[in-house]
Amino acid sequence: MTDVLGDPLGEVRDVRLVRIGRVDAGNGSLTVAEVGSQLPFPVRRFFTVFDVPAGELRGTHAHRECHQFLVAVHGSVTARVDDGARTAETVLDRPELGLYLPPLIWGGQLDYSPGAVLLVFASHPYDRSDYIEDYEEFLRMVRSGR
Amino acid sequence: MTDVLGDPLGEVRDVRLVRIGRVDAGNGSLTVAEVGSQLPFPVRRFFTVFDVPAGELRGTHAHRECHQFLVAVHGSVTARVDDGARTAETVLDRPELGLYLPPLIWGGQLDYSPGAVLLVFASHPYDRSDYIEDYEEFLRMVRSGR
Repeated sequence: MTDVLGDPLGEVRDVRLVRIGRVDAGNGSLTVAEVGSQLPFPVRRFFTVFDVPAGELRGTHAHRECHQFLVAVHGSVTARVDDGARTAETVLDRPELGLYLPPLIWGGQLDYSPGAVLLVFASHPYDRSDYIEDYEEFLRMVRSGR
Repeated sequence: MTDVLGDPLGEVRDVRLVRIGRVDAGNGSLTVAEVGSQLPFPVRRFFTVFDVPAGELRGTHAHRECHQFLVAVHGSVTARVDDGARTAETVLDRPELGLYLPPLIWGGQLDYSPGAVLLVFASHPYDRSDYIEDYEEFLRMVRSGR
């Protein structure tokens, strides 16, 4: 069952922090998530981000249609989210935390710890035209109701 | 485009080592894979395996129907594969390598480096009855053509 955590991200439109199942045993630890449950959209693509220098801010764009799901599978990453009216930050520092970002959320990631690996699932194949990289354009879109 | 690497795993039935796209830049590195291309099946579930003690052998089962795709997203893991007639091992030590395991391949993972994280995609939701955990039963199944 999906476990949506209560946290300040709930203030940002439709952004959710999700608890993924985790099992710790003597022979290792495991996290597990299923599409349609913890991972709330069909997965068409995944990417990993790593070797990010200290002080780097990555992301800083929104998507028109693409949904994303972020998991720090090693180390920690701070995720910043912005719906055009409210902003929030959360630290992804456990592999059992997933951050769901719907379309039209401006997202950025910063403070990668040394060795951190961010895993991102996307609902769409790569499409350059799906990216909104101009913040003023983003604001116009969300304020006009798209 | 899928890039299937030539290596000894080609001797084991339908097991493939796949090169995932990788981009290195001054602000960090990225790997990207798309479902239907590098990742050759629809994803219904993912799991991560980590904090595995040195000397531990994990996996050691086959699946009746489930396809899997393994990526060491941090550190390195040795993957052992066995189709009932031939066995092979490969070291997954770069996040741009994916190992595709079809059903009815006996798989095991060992030699997790400290901090290693193995990411596994699965084509099916969790189903206890899909697991074959008895090696003799596995051999009977593959030798009888299922």
